[in-house]
Amino acid sequence: MSRDGPGWVQAGSYALAAEVPVALVFDGVTQAVMMATPADLPEFLLGFALTEGIIAAPAEVLRSEIVEQGAGIEARAWLAEAPGAAFRDRRRAMMGPVGCGLCGIESIEQALRAVPPVIPRALRLRPGDPGRALADLERAQEIHDRVRGCHAAGLWRPGAGLIAQAEDVGRHNALDKLAGKLAGQAGGALVMTSRLSVDLVQKAAMIGAEVLMGAGAATGLAVAEAERAGITLIGRAGSRAPEIYCHPERFDGAK
Amino acid sequence: MSRDGPGWVQAGSYALAAEVPVALVFDGVTQAVMMATPADLPEFLLGFALTEGIIAAPAEVLRSEIVEQGAGIEARAWLAEAPGAAFRDRRRAMMGPVGCGLCGIESIEQALRAVPPVIPRALRLRPGDPGRALADLERAQEIHDRVRGCHAAGLWRPGAGLIAQAEDVGRHNALDKLAGKLAGQAGGALVMTSRLSVDLVQKAAMIGAEVLMGAGAATGLAVAEAERAGITLIGRAGSRAPEIYCHPERFDGAK
Repeated sequence: MSRDGPGWVQAGSYALAAEVPVALVFDGVTQAVMMATPADLPEFLLGFALTEGIIAAPAEVLRSEIVEQGAGIEARAWLAEAPGAAFRDRRRAMMGPVGCGLCGIESIEQALRAVPPVIPRALRLRPGDPGRALADLERAQEIHDRVRGCHAAGLWRPGAGLIAQAEDVGRHNALDKLAGKLAGQAGGALVMTSRLSVDLVQKAAMIGAEVLMGAGAATGLAVAEAERAGITLIGRAGSRAPEIYCHPERFDGAK
Repeated sequence: MSRDGPGWVQAGSYALAAEVPVALVFDGVTQAVMMATPADLPEFLLGFALTEGIIAAPAEVLRSEIVEQGAGIEARAWLAEAPGAAFRDRRRAMMGPVGCGLCGIESIEQALRAVPPVIPRALRLRPGDPGRALADLERAQEIHDRVRGCHAAGLWRPGAGLIAQAEDVGRHNALDKLAGKLAGQAGGALVMTSRLSVDLVQKAAMIGAEVLMGAGAATGLAVAEAERAGITLIGRAGSRAPEIYCHPERFDGAK
């Protein structure tokens, strides 16, 4: 098997999505190990730090580096004093017998972390926009075009089209990479090739996205969280009848 | 929003997959918190313990209970003496400054854990079997039929059809639930509605599955791991030309 580009490998006659363990390391401490596609890793590190609330602004990462480490990759960031101290406090609280879990999440309460409500910025959508946004995103999928089986996240604006996009075998990783590319400011609608689970809604709220749409359906918890956060959540964006689960007021003509 | 069945909720006019934080707790210690669909939770707990190597056989779980806990659910198991001691040792090794990560995984090495090669049991496939297996699985998806956006894992045998299946918003959870239903013995081919990532191959190997097929493509790392473990890995099972990535010798007529 040979590496054949930033995001794919060749296995016999098949081009496949590359998947590598990526450790996200802050001030020398591993917060999470993600199976990820090794493209856009500096943006992945920055975006993860932003959407998981480790930093509040990109400038709080003082320095970062991407280092191949055995069979995986370490993405290392060094934090400014205040976020660094907060990170150490948080890690210390996790060291007890309750232990750890998904993506550095160690408890049910943390999995359902409180996210800030988004600030409305007059983003308005027309009925055909979800389908247009998803089609624009799908056209921009460089890795997926070769390997199929790779997710993408994009930022889309009515009239302007796709502003930025990122790909990964993991949908949450794709969104984190996009968040990094946007330096944590989602001025527009987020669009994803995937189903809409609650972690995506949480990450969308952390970068102030007013709208989140996906090719698949949402989960119940994703809708509850989007309702609370003030996010317009739209499923089955590519179908003839996209499903607007909550906050339909951003659609023109909506009551 | 109201709970309307074991695996779905009703949000306005939409039936959506239920998604709840489920803490997997062994001897009082949380090993992981998964966002999961709250159906088949005893099987999920048992299957997770088996595929993650916490126990080697179902009898090593002495007792278990499923408890609603605030906004989530705790799935608790008490282990026999030997696996309990091994679990505590493993946890102690994780308590250092290196910390934790995905699903209780704290390092790149652990994400790429060694899994045992499967023991060949003369399972043979015909060219049309991947398509038949996936179609059988899709017909059995009770939750997905209502909500779309829910994954499934099944055990399928040539001639006999679908033996068992399980559903979840997370594909790895669906496979763990199936592993629990099978009490850790996959005598047949595994079939999934999802893409094939490396964690699925690792879990398949832990329950001795000779064949793993999926509706989507595999990642490069999944193929490398299946090659090592002796598993026949098949992607795009529902397409006209399923992709046999490795160990094609289980197909009749193969060289």
